Amino acid sequence: MSRIKKIGVLTSGGDAPGMNAAIRAVVRTAIFNNLEVVGVKQGYEGLIKGDFETMKSYDVSNIIQKGGTILCSARSEEFRSVEGRKKAHEQMLAAKIDALVVIGGDGTFSGARIFTQEYDIPVVGIPGTIDNDLFGTDYTIGFDTALNTVIEAVDKIRDTASAHNRLFFIEVMGRDAGFLALRSGIATGAEAILIPERQTHLKDLEKYLAKGYKGHKNSGIVIVAEGDKSGGAYTIAREIEKKHPEYDIRVSVLGHMQRGGSPSAFDRVTASTLGVAAVDALLDDQKSIMVGMVNGEVSHVSFNKTIKNKKVVKDSLLTLNDILSI
Amino acid sequence: MSRIKKIGVLTSGGDAPGMNAAIRAVVRTAIFNNLEVVGVKQGYEGLIKGDFETMKSYDVSNIIQKGGTILCSARSEEFRSVEGRKKAHEQMLAAKIDALVVIGGDGTFSGARIFTQEYDIPVVGIPGTIDNDLFGTDYTIGFDTALNTVIEAVDKIRDTASAHNRLFFIEVMGRDAGFLALRSGIATGAEAILIPERQTHLKDLEKYLAKGYKGHKNSGIVIVAEGDKSGGAYTIAREIEKKHPEYDIRVSVLGHMQRGGSPSAFDRVTASTLGVAAVDALLDDQKSIMVGMVNGEVSHVSFNKTIKNKKVVKDSLLTLNDILSI
Amino acid sequence: MSRIKKIGVLTSGGDAPGMNAAIRAVVRTAIFNNLEVVGVKQGYEGLIKGDFETMKSYDVSNIIQKGGTILCSARSEEFRSVEGRKKAHEQMLAAKIDALVVIGGDGTFSGARIFTQEYDIPVVGIPGTIDNDLFGTDYTIGFDTALNTVIEAVDKIRDTASAHNRLFFIEVMGRDAGFLALRSGIATGAEAILIPERQTHLKDLEKYLAKGYKGHKNSGIVIVAEGDKSGGAYTIAREIEKKHPEYDIRVSVLGHMQRGGSPSAFDRVTASTLGVAAVDALLDDQKSIMVGMVNGEVSHVSFNKTIKNKKVVKDSLLTLNDILSI
Amino acid sequence: MSRIKKIGVLTSGGDAPGMNAAIRAVVRTAIFNNLEVVGVKQGYEGLIKGDFETMKSYDVSNIIQKGGTILCSARSEEFRSVEGRKKAHEQMLAAKIDALVVIGGDGTFSGARIFTQEYDIPVVGIPGTIDNDLFGTDYTIGFDTALNTVIEAVDKIRDTASAHNRLFFIEVMGRDAGFLALRSGIATGAEAILIPERQTHLKDLEKYLAKGYKGHKNSGIVIVAEGDKSGGAYTIAREIEKKHPEYDIRVSVLGHMQRGGSPSAFDRVTASTLGVAAVDALLDDQKSIMVGMVNGEVSHVSFNKTIKNKKVVKDSLLTLNDILSI
Repeated sequence: MSRIKKIGVLTSGGDAPGMNAAIRAVVRTAIFNNLEVVGVKQGYEGLIKGDFETMKSYDVSNIIQKGGTILCSARSEEFRSVEGRKKAHEQMLAAKIDALVVIGGDGTFSGARIFTQEYDIPVVGIPGTIDNDLFGTDYTIGFDTALNTVIEAVDKIRDTASAHNRLFFIEVMGRDAGFLALRSGIATGAEAILIPERQTHLKDLEKYLAKGYKGHKNSGIVIVAEGDKSGGAYTIAREIEKKHPEYDIRVSVLGHMQRGGSPSAFDRVTASTLGVAAVDALLDDQKSIMVGMVNGEVSHVSFNKTIKNKKVVKDSLLTLNDILSI
Repeated sequence: MSRIKKIGVLTSGGDAPGMNAAIRAVVRTAIFNNLEVVGVKQGYEGLIKGDFETMKSYDVSNIIQKGGTILCSARSEEFRSVEGRKKAHEQMLAAKIDALVVIGGDGTFSGARIFTQEYDIPVVGIPGTIDNDLFGTDYTIGFDTALNTVIEAVDKIRDTASAHNRLFFIEVMGRDAGFLALRSGIATGAEAILIPERQTHLKDLEKYLAKGYKGHKNSGIVIVAEGDKSGGAYTIAREIEKKHPEYDIRVSVLGHMQRGGSPSAFDRVTASTLGVAAVDALLDDQKSIMVGMVNGEVSHVSFNKTIKNKKVVKDSLLTLNDILSI
Repeated sequence: MSRIKKIGVLTSGGDAPGMNAAIRAVVRTAIFNNLEVVGVKQGYEGLIKGDFETMKSYDVSNIIQKGGTILCSARSEEFRSVEGRKKAHEQMLAAKIDALVVIGGDGTFSGARIFTQEYDIPVVGIPGTIDNDLFGTDYTIGFDTALNTVIEAVDKIRDTASAHNRLFFIEVMGRDAGFLALRSGIATGAEAILIPERQTHLKDLEKYLAKGYKGHKNSGIVIVAEGDKSGGAYTIAREIEKKHPEYDIRVSVLGHMQRGGSPSAFDRVTASTLGVAAVDALLDDQKSIMVGMVNGEVSHVSFNKTIKNKKVVKDSLLTLNDILSI
Repeated sequence: MSRIKKIGVLTSGGDAPGMNAAIRAVVRTAIFNNLEVVGVKQGYEGLIKGDFETMKSYDVSNIIQKGGTILCSARSEEFRSVEGRKKAHEQMLAAKIDALVVIGGDGTFSGARIFTQEYDIPVVGIPGTIDNDLFGTDYTIGFDTALNTVIEAVDKIRDTASAHNRLFFIEVMGRDAGFLALRSGIATGAEAILIPERQTHLKDLEKYLAKGYKGHKNSGIVIVAEGDKSGGAYTIAREIEKKHPEYDIRVSVLGHMQRGGSPSAFDRVTASTLGVAAVDALLDDQKSIMVGMVNGEVSHVSFNKTIKNKKVVKDSLLTLNDILSI
């Protein structure tokens, strides 16, 4: 039987819709298994400061539908230092916390990995980021909600683009990854999609626009991931404008609203599943792993692997859009 | 090379959000491959009457985000008869339609199967139903949207339930299948979920409610699939009310709004993927199959198999809810 | 200067979106004016039981966008009795509460009126009900949100109605008043609207349907207020079905979701304005009045008047719909 | 009796949600009164080119809920010239169009006024702009929808702001007018609201932020109208950042999504009412007027007056926010 009596749960890095659903699942699964559970505020910052709060079942009542994270999140400089992690460990000892569930992305797991290497603390991670850029899971919590937020915004912009026969460059989040741009582009019938994983050839883009936007269509949408090599929506729009002064071009940067909102059904179910799975993994003596969803089933992947590997964008989806945007 | 020159596309049975996205994908993929494509109105009814319309790329512009189906749908009694199918075949010959893509559910594919057995017409199906009850695909088009529609409605009801400390029985669609009830129940933090695939034991339900609703919670939600063996939300509510007059009970039947609305990102991407896959399958000389999504990839399953087999509800999700509703 | 040092605020009767925005405004305006403020839980029930909670500015942070009411609501039988109100008065004396702001509808104000007649307690009311049926104010808090909830649901139903060429009878809330039915009917392009304030002539309805639904339209929507004299959506649908078996008829009762949801911008601004106005009125030595909005300005109307008079439905809107549904 | 036999309807300037509802009302009211009605494409551009389309009742079926404008909109340079307007007049004569309904804003009505001065053509205007900046009407079509779009976006941003304890500067539309900023600020509980009609004093803003954001609150929102004298959200954010490097500041410019989306119930009812009123006015021999809503009733105001006068922002709403943001 597991020696774990008390676990801590925290959210770290950029927040994502569904984090609260994951917290709820962690708390209730812990209680269901007769564990104590404390919420750690502000991510690793709270771990260092000992900002802990015992959580009961009703503390997570009625939060499954809420955006943001009730535990708050932060990026912690101090946790990057040996000294900071030492303090965190001491706080955990003092509070008798035996294990951790950390909800976040790449940076969160990097922090967790080094912490588990230095101290004998089991840590299990849950992937929570709107970027969906984590190796070892098909979906990260928040991705589906962000997708829906993006397509609702783009649908609205399409209304006004069509009314005025305009070409819009719309920038969506994704500093290193084009998952959000790619799927939202397909889902909104974008004329073109520019992502960091692919080289953007201005010539190709011009060709597409000439065929679609200036061909038979009464509006044009180009989705640009913020990390696209061309330099973002404004830069690429300026390039096209220079060569095609006849186009009526506008730019919209969707910004931080993509991180908020009530989570979608998909994200709530995924978050609930992974919250249960994370506590189960701790009870099964797992450590230094992220729980994820692969082919509809819970998977385990070591922090090591999820940090070192890069999740690959499906070429088939890019090809798909070339066909559908004709 | 395929001998197919012209294909028809139709939607049949109950409509589902994302059908338009699928139609768009079929039309554009056909055109991309230099095929002609006609829309058949009102499902098999239109096939019998020869209600056809040639479709160009711009005919499906700006429909990816629309609920319903631009081709309309209907249930056709006449197509169940040998005579009806004969007329349909003659209409296809007259219009030189070589192959069909049919979008719908179980009934749609049953009709297609017998039609392909009688006549040498390649038919490929696309799963479109909010019920998600088709064997051979993880997701059917419309399911994710319906899920989100349900959870938005239940979230609203939760507001008023919490304000008044009430217990709600909420009936969602699903005559034979509990997929929608199960996932929406998890996603809304329901106290209990009743589905056709499981026997409902009144005693168990009472126990749950006593523990949750009348324990520490200030509201209770029970999600009931319309096909639940207990007889639907009204019947089960009456049973509970008789035994627990101290509960403040209300019933809500969500009804047909579950079928409508702008499709979710997930449904749009799935519909687009399957629309392309259906035309690809025809060009690869496939017939009598449904294209589906299994583990994130396109799959082929014979009409025979998808009709004869029943998709199974995951026990793990029911167990999950028992843990999370404490 | 006013002798009021401490006020109580409560929500009573059916809850309505925007009640939290009103509570926030009452609390902060009180604090802004150096008053103490306590929240009373469960409406008049909490007043009788002394269920009070001191409220600070941050207690109402981040609630303006939330449906329901953080103070909960209830209907109190005991407050209808002399004895119950005596207890309530004693609790107020014990807690040194000098005045009350009550948020609710007709029943709430009736209770408040008799209470102020028996005891020298200033009470000011804020109209909070989705029915918009209060005399002395153009809008009640929650009405606009409920309208938007209804039209979103009806838009979804229209999708499926159009796909199947169906006639829907949709029942919306409004036991005694047709405001919600009337405006949602106009806003959704309903073929007909049935409200309690008008006699429903089956002959007229048949005529409309024959002209519209079976004339040139591919779907039909009839909005029925729950208090319509004809007996609700199911009854009237059955009548029409009997006489027109050729119609493909469906019924949907929207139910309690109409009471929930995040309040609309309009309701939030109205609630904020009236919350400020209610505290201002108390500071101006007003009592036994409801604050309302008339022609865009704050108005005062005695409880007496708002209870005794019936708000009239605009004939012009019914005429409007006769023109627009052709 | 009016000599008008045939009217034209057009949308001009920036599009706004609800324009389609207004078009529908104009078309059906015209038909109800036995007039012919033609849609003019692309605003005054289409008038000059004779881009007309006869409209029947079913042409405006199922558009009441759609954003954008089915007639498209454009700004016409040519219509600013005597020659351009001469061509427009000739096109109208050729098509036997006796009168016009123009839907738009300030610029639209300026064009209409000079046109009616040069030619004896009755023109009636309908206020359609998300800015609500037209004198002579309490509400313009699109304003309420844009408000709701803004608050939904800000609510989402509030989630992430709260999770990270951040201060956001959010820019909303309104080049010359602060109506949208003011009401959305109140509706989202903004810590401060900056509008073109008021001088922004950095000192005051700092004071507010120190009190609220850095006092007891865990996030801060400042709503900035794009036409604010301080130079927009980015400029003001930079100023504050310079003086308060301790604040974690982000900027979001909501952009063109504010113009799109399915119209709110309020906008649909207003648009329907004004569409009827515009045709009624033409039949009553009115010309060179805008129909509007004042105190809940239809009003008439001359183009002259609505162009020359500036609608005033309510001081009471600014005061309100000072109280509520404590």
